[in-house]
Formats: sequence, C-alpha cells, structure tokens
Amino acid sequence: MNDVVNKVKKTIVVVGGVAGGASAATRARRCDESAHIVLFEKDEHISFANCGLPYYIGGEIKDRAKLLITTPAQVAQRFGIEVHTQREVMSIDRVRKVVTVLNRETGETTEQSYDKLILAPGASPIVPPGPRAANVFTLRNLHDTDMLKSALDALAAREGDEPRRAVVVGAGFIGLEMVEQLHHKGFVEEELGRRGVRLYLGDGVLGLTMKDGLATEIRLESGLSLAADLFILGMGVRPNTQLAEAAGLTLGPSRGVKVDEHMRTNDPDVYAVGDVVEVLHGVAHTPLRVPLAGIANRAGRLAGGHCVGENPERAPAALGTAIVRVFGVVAACTGLSEAQAARMATPCATVYVEGGSHASYYPGAQSLLLKVLFHPETGKLLGAQAVGGEGVDKRIDVVATALHFGGTVRDLAQIDLAYAPPFGSAKDPLHMAAFAACNQLDGLVRFVPPTTKLHNSQVVDVRDAHELGQGVIPGALNIPLDDLRERLGELDPSRPTVVVCRSGKRGYLGARILSQRGFEDVAVLTGGMVARRLVAAD
Amino acid sequence: MNDVVNKVKKTIVVVGGVAGGASAATRARRCDESAHIVLFEKDEHISFANCGLPYYIGGEIKDRAKLLITTPAQVAQRFGIEVHTQREVMSIDRVRKVVTVLNRETGETTEQSYDKLILAPGASPIVPPGPRAANVFTLRNLHDTDMLKSALDALAAREGDEPRRAVVVGAGFIGLEMVEQLHHKGFVEEELGRRGVRLYLGDGVLGLTMKDGLATEIRLESGLSLAADLFILGMGVRPNTQLAEAAGLTLGPSRGVKVDEHMRTNDPDVYAVGDVVEVLHGVAHTPLRVPLAGIANRAGRLAGGHCVGENPERAPAALGTAIVRVFGVVAACTGLSEAQAARMATPCATVYVEGGSHASYYPGAQSLLLKVLFHPETGKLLGAQAVGGEGVDKRIDVVATALHFGGTVRDLAQIDLAYAPPFGSAKDPLHMAAFAACNQLDGLVRFVPPTTKLHNSQVVDVRDAHELGQGVIPGALNIPLDDLRERLGELDPSRPTVVVCRSGKRGYLGARILSQRGFEDVAVLTGGMVARRLVAAD
Repeated sequence: MNDVVNKVKKTIVVVGGVAGGASAATRARRCDESAHIVLFEKDEHISFANCGLPYYIGGEIKDRAKLLITTPAQVAQRFGIEVHTQREVMSIDRVRKVVTVLNRETGETTEQSYDKLILAPGASPIVPPGPRAANVFTLRNLHDTDMLKSALDALAAREGDEPRRAVVVGAGFIGLEMVEQLHHKGFVEEELGRRGVRLYLGDGVLGLTMKDGLATEIRLESGLSLAADLFILGMGVRPNTQLAEAAGLTLGPSRGVKVDEHMRTNDPDVYAVGDVVEVLHGVAHTPLRVPLAGIANRAGRLAGGHCVGENPERAPAALGTAIVRVFGVVAACTGLSEAQAARMATPCATVYVEGGSHASYYPGAQSLLLKVLFHPETGKLLGAQAVGGEGVDKRIDVVATALHFGGTVRDLAQIDLAYAPPFGSAKDPLHMAAFAACNQLDGLVRFVPPTTKLHNSQVVDVRDAHELGQGVIPGALNIPLDDLRERLGELDPSRPTVVVCRSGKRGYLGARILSQRGFEDVAVLTGGMVARRLVAAD
Repeated sequence: MNDVVNKVKKTIVVVGGVAGGASAATRARRCDESAHIVLFEKDEHISFANCGLPYYIGGEIKDRAKLLITTPAQVAQRFGIEVHTQREVMSIDRVRKVVTVLNRETGETTEQSYDKLILAPGASPIVPPGPRAANVFTLRNLHDTDMLKSALDALAAREGDEPRRAVVVGAGFIGLEMVEQLHHKGFVEEELGRRGVRLYLGDGVLGLTMKDGLATEIRLESGLSLAADLFILGMGVRPNTQLAEAAGLTLGPSRGVKVDEHMRTNDPDVYAVGDVVEVLHGVAHTPLRVPLAGIANRAGRLAGGHCVGENPERAPAALGTAIVRVFGVVAACTGLSEAQAARMATPCATVYVEGGSHASYYPGAQSLLLKVLFHPETGKLLGAQAVGGEGVDKRIDVVATALHFGGTVRDLAQIDLAYAPPFGSAKDPLHMAAFAACNQLDGLVRFVPPTTKLHNSQVVDVRDAHELGQGVIPGALNIPLDDLRERLGELDPSRPTVVVCRSGKRGYLGARILSQRGFEDVAVLTGGMVARRLVAAD
C-alpha cells in the first residue's frame, strides 16, 4: 500500500519559488501524490514574506525569522518536492521538453526533463543605467533587505548632529498607483509632511551623481537635485521574461507573458504565474501586469492544480485592488481610476462621500473619504478609492466584490452589510455614496468634482457660519441651509450655481431646494470642502 | 421665485419617526420640495440612536445627548416637515384617505388627509403576560433607557457586599440568532464565563415570581429558577401591525405587513417600512421580518422617494446580515445558517477555516473562525458566519456582497481583495474557505463537520506531538503530517478514516496523501481541532 496507485508518474518542473512558484508546486502535490515535482530557485530562499520586508526594515516586524515562511527542507519533507536552490534555469527546449539548469555554486550545467513546466521567475527592480553605488538599494529579497538594514543601522549610529537624509525614488506599484490615481495629494502630503517626509511628484529621474563609489545626489528632470546619505529605488519592476522569450513563448501587449484562463502560455505544457505574466483586468477588460502577492499566489495554486489534471477553476480576477498605509493614513483602491477611465475613453461619473468608520455616536469613529466611479448612464461600478483610517480596507473589499460581479451603484445601495455601532452605520458610507450616485442617475442632482473651477459660478455655501474657519471658496455666498428657503432672493436663479457644504450632504439638499424653485443650472460640489481640500490642487 | 414651480402639492403623512419614518419623510422632501409632509410620532423623539442604547447603558457612550440624532425642531426647520410628537395615529380611512390622530397630551382627536401614507410604527418588545414589576425592563426607546440606567445606578450604589445580580432574558434578534445559529457555543460561553456571565440556552420562560411589586426570580421551563435584583427583557419584538390590520392592509406569512419592491402595501397609496414589514430574504427567497436599523433606514429612503414620483430603485436586499460584539469577541453572520437551510430542505455543505485577521508575520494578527455554507453541487454561496476579533465584519460584508449577486465559492476564490500585511493575507481566510469548498466540489476532498461523531472511524491526527496538549480526539492515532507517507503501514486503508489537525489545513494534505494511496473512504474534519473545540458540544 506504500505505492501510489493507478497513476502515470508526471514530472512537473517549477522555475522560481517565490512569485507563485511555491504555491504551484505544493498545489500540484496536493492534487497529485504521484507526480515528480522539481523546483529550481536561483536564490537562496524559495518562500519568504516579500510584502513584509519594508515592515522589517522599519522595525515593526522585529524577528527576521518571521519573514521566512518556509524553508526548502520543510517543503521537501512535507510535500515530497525536490527543491534546488542556487539553481538558475538558463533555457527551455520545448521540443525535447527539457530545461538547462546552472548550478550557481559549482558552475556546472545539467538538464532536467519535464512533462509540465511552470514559470515563476518573478520580476526585477527597475534601476537607472550606469554603475551601482554602495549606498543605492533596492528591496526585492532578503539579501536586499539585509544590506539596506545594515546601511540604515550604520547611518543611525553615525556620530555628530548632521541630519541623516534618505531619498526614496518612486514608491513602487502600490505607492505610485495610490499617489497618482487617488489624487488625494493633499491628504498624503500633509501626513508625510508631519513626519519629516517631502514628496516630489510628477518629476523624472535623470541620474545619480557619484563620488568615490557612493551616490551623493539624485538629479531630476525638473532641474532639482536632492542630496542624501542613501537612496532606495522603488521605481517599479520589470518582468523577468528573458527565459520565456528565448523559448519563443508569446508576450502580451503589456510585455508580460501571455497566459490563458488556466495560466497556460501559448505552449499548453508551459504555464506562467506571478509577476512575469499579464492578467486580464476585470473592469478594463485589457491585459495588464499586476505584480502583487495575492494574485501570484492564487495563480500559482491554479496552475499547480491544472497541470496535473483538469479542474474548472479560472484565473484569479485582477481588479487593480491595492492598499497602502502611510504612517497613520490608509489609502486603497480597486477597479479603474479616473485617469485610467479617461485613457480608455470609458464614460465615468464620480461621487465623493465623507463618513465615519462607524456610527458617529459611538466613540472612536475615524473619518474616511470614499470616491466611487460609475458609468453615468448605466450606473455600472467602475472603481473606488478610499483614504482614512479604520475600515478603508473593508469598504474597498466590498466594492471589489461588487466589481467582480459587474454590479451597479443600485446594487451597492441595496447590499445588506453588517451593522452595529462599533462596526459601521445604518447607512454606511458605501450606501451613502451609492445613494448619491443613484440620485444623479435619476436626475435628482448633478455633482461636479472637487477640482471644479468655480470662479464663473454662483457659489452658495450652505454651512453654518461657525464652520467657515475651515476654509471658504473665494466669492461664495454663505447662506446656512436652514435659512436657504427664506433667503432665495439673494441669489440669481439664472446663473449657473454650485452648492457647497462640508461633506456634500447638505449641499445636495440645498441643490434640491434651488433646482425645484426655478434655478436653472444647479450642481453640488461632491464631497464638499473636505474633498476639495484633499483633492483639489488649487 | 419664492414659490415652488410647476408642482401639484401632494400631502405625505408619515406615521412614526424612528423605524425608517424620519428617513422616509426627509427623502420625500429631498425629492419633492413642494410636498406637504406631516410626521406623527406617538412618543417624544422622532429620531434617536436606538442601536446605541445598550452602549450608553454600559457607559461606552457617555453623553446622552449623542443618542439624539436630530430633534423635531431641527427636522421641521431644515426639511420643512410638520412634525407632531405625542400624536398617535389611531385609524386609517383608506376610502376617504384620512387618518385619525390622538393628541396624547390633550386627549383631543383630529383628522389629517393624505395623498400618500407611510407607516413606520415599528415593533414592541415581547413581554411575558401578567403585571409589570418595577425592576423588569425593556430597552426600546430613550424612556426605557433612562429607567434602566437609574435602576442600575441605584443598584450599583447599594450598600453592603451582597452580590448584585441581573438576568437578561433572551438576547434580542441578533443575540439569539448568533448564539443559536453560529453554534459557536463554546466560544461565546468561554468569553462570557470569564466576565461572570452565565448562559442558559435552549430554555423557555414560564414566568416571573413577584413579591411586593418586584420580580424576585424568573422561572424557566427546565424547572430552573434564577433569582436577581433586576431583569431585562430582550425576548425580541412584535411588529406593531394593529393599525395596518384594522385598515385592512395585508399581512404576510411572517405576520409583518406585506409590501412590494417599492415598499407599497396592497393599497398603492399606503407604504410601510421598518420593523413592521416583512422583507424578502435574498438567499431563502421567503418573506421574513428583519427588525434591524440598516434595512429600516434604506427602506424609508426608498418609500419616501417613491411616494412623490417614480424611481427605479428596489427594496433593500435582506440577507440576514448581523453582527454583535460580546466583550472581546465579535460574531457576525450573513445569509442562511445550517439550521435555516435544513428547515428549507436546501442542500448545504460547510467548510470552516481558521485564519488571521492579517498576515501572521505582521504583529497583532487576531484569530478568526470562518464558516462558509454553499450548495454541494453548484457551489452557490448560501451564507457565512464568523467569530473572532478584528476583521470579522469585513469578511462577512464581502460574503454578503457576493450573496447579493448570487455568487459561488468559485467567485469567492477569485475576488481580488485588498492585501498588505497589516490588512489581510495574500490568501485571505475568505480565499482559503473558498479554496476548501472548491476542492470538495472538484472531488479532491470530503469535509465532515466539527460535530461529527468519530468513535467508529479511524482517526488520524497529523499534528506534531507538541500540539496534542491542546486536546485530542479519543482513540486518534497521532502521525505527524511530515511522517505520514512513511508510516502508512500503521493504518488500515479499508476503514473509514478521518484526518484531523489544528485548523484543517494539514488534515487536507494528509487526506490527499491517504486517498491517493489506496485508502477507500477518507474525510477531513473541517476547521480541525479549533472548530471542534468551539463548535462541538461533546
């Protein structure tokens, strides 16, 4: 009974242990106890908490051992997988179904045949051309991490009062996406400024100035130069497609390896997963690269199962969902941004809602600003972005789920979410955003974005007088909402009118009053002064 | 310009300000500036934070004023609504379209005509028959709250060392649902026990024993009597349907007022919202009463909009989503419970997953136990329950959203949720539960519930030896997973075999090894020893 019964032994070769590779190999084993599974990893580790590296650098994760999720020996023992580290797969012969493997310790080259091949070579950090200075770092693996941590420790221990300066170039996939797409520049900048961090946005890198093998400053396209003690490059990643390209596998328009819904390349015996592939965006319906851990892991699981037998699961949806914490602020997004929608020429309306993480009368509620994007005619959800404290992740995950199903803002208005005072509101910010969107769909109101130029409009600020200290729009006439019906005579009903308040809620009511009393062109500044302060650049 | 233009003035009468009534009245105003809107409330307040009352009693909400969301005067001023408190609507003449209103302060009766009538009379606490003792309380409105708080303060100030005892009878809609449906009796009981609270479940109330106008003890059907200083009744609510019934409006099978998707009763000019109505359950497709704030508020908004003009929104989905915090434990549910599925004869499979609120290597992750119910052939999601700390609300809201769209476990496995180490895991517990369910759908594994009787099975415990101190199943053979392939000879492949581990994850791998090596009947105890300890009663 000690032999696997009724099985033709298949050889599965997995290239790369980190970006979905280990998931693929272990899933293959769970599905097929008889398979001969071989994993080649060119570095030392096959599995580590790559998303945890920054937190270890920063000291939130104190124990380096926590980053090592599983060792080659553990995987070999538990899953009966042949694990070879320090082995780089140099080429694929798809006709003979053989890979050539370089032993990086001995320099020897061997061959390994496969029935099914799974490529998970990941991606590499983008670095500027030219020689690499000793004080310029990337953060991709444990080796990078150890180097950076030593350098930071040395810098911290340096004697003297001279300030220590670091420049982070780019903010990686998530950071860049968030800063660029959310347009919540004010919010993030404020928080960063408080912590002694300065942001330089919309600038490009020309190069690093070197002296004695060290980088001394970074030169930007704007002409600015920033001097620092060390430089960390987070300029995004480039998929490691060399092996796949050399083997004649097809790349897609985003220059990632093209795969089908089972993660197969154009060769049905060769799969690819993780940062090297492109995936279909569930909202944009275009292929793009999403070098994020969740998708890599789920894709690895899928390929590992599929390569040893059919199963009906499909590739994980990519919705561009991402989340980042910047000190005390959490920012997250899913689906399309306004900029993406514009590039795709997808009609897109937006509403902003400011709300509490839970019922306002229960202690500890934190403010969040939620932006929901939807099709202006059909109400179909296109995306959402949120920034705040607690509960940002929950709201974005609900929208991501609705996007998965192709839902509309009317769906969102209906969803029966869990409510008790410590967890939400009877009308959650998600509901409030959906209500606002439905109101616009139904012709009850027209929202204009926080960035709208207002100098040619009649601006009616319906806040109470004591709120005006938080900032006003130049030229706005303040008529508190409760007085609006009595003071209509102060306004010109023939002029284009924009109603503003703190968060947009009273503005909506004000606009309803005006538009039903003969005002011809009335709009509401969505998200009110809160959104305008956070989003508008002027 | 001070007059509303081009509008026939409609009179909207709203009965009851709390359970969706205020939402309906204010929404009607937002939609129709010209309408004459009259709100009658038999009590003093038209809007207060009813979900916040327990937290005020307990002292978490310190300021009573926070419970008063808005006053009659504020609503009158801002929305131009005629608000009459202490006015009880006694009858409806649907032919003449007139309601009769009792002024509870003067005893006078007047008539008010309507074009559209919205009933939001709410529900009343269920109390045992017989005289009401001064130390027996319900908690439905601010008056109840003030009475109970005084009594508790007096009891706390009582001199002497005698212990102060309170009995809470029933735990209301959410509490009862949670305790009964989650079957997480162990978990909740443990937490309550630590706090000096004892649970008596599955017992009925016979009555209260009275002495000198005070209740001294409560007698239960089991023969048990519990003495206490005060008694709080949370035995659920009965919808206040008297007015509707007397007017000949139709009740549904659950004895709530029957309404259509626009919240209209069988009289198209009469709407009903809130705790008085029954709603369609989005999963069960049967009508039921859901006396919860979120649904009441959203239904009020819908009726208020619909009664002054058509709009395409439909009634809020009811999925039975609910959440409760019991000291440090959060429990939440959505969709069907196993008991409900059984009553409906809906085929139902379950998986349990134990996971962290976020990545285990990032500090502060809290354990949560997630149960997902799905159709055993189609994989259609039927419901979910979760218990734990942080992040329980998020997981339940994601499942509620998927339920809204009629999604399957294959959808859930795909959803691109927001991931960064402080917020979740690359494979979230939701994904892990969906993967497990998909594995069962695909015939890779068969799960048996935590409550399974195991004395006739060959039980293989694949935990490491050092974990056995957390409890073992009598008669189980311990073979650590990493040794299983080598020690198969110790097992009988012809016997029905159940594999157990801590959480079910290793059990699944163990079962895959056994079933592919000649074991004929292999199952996994879903959720492992964690779920068995929390769920199983034996």
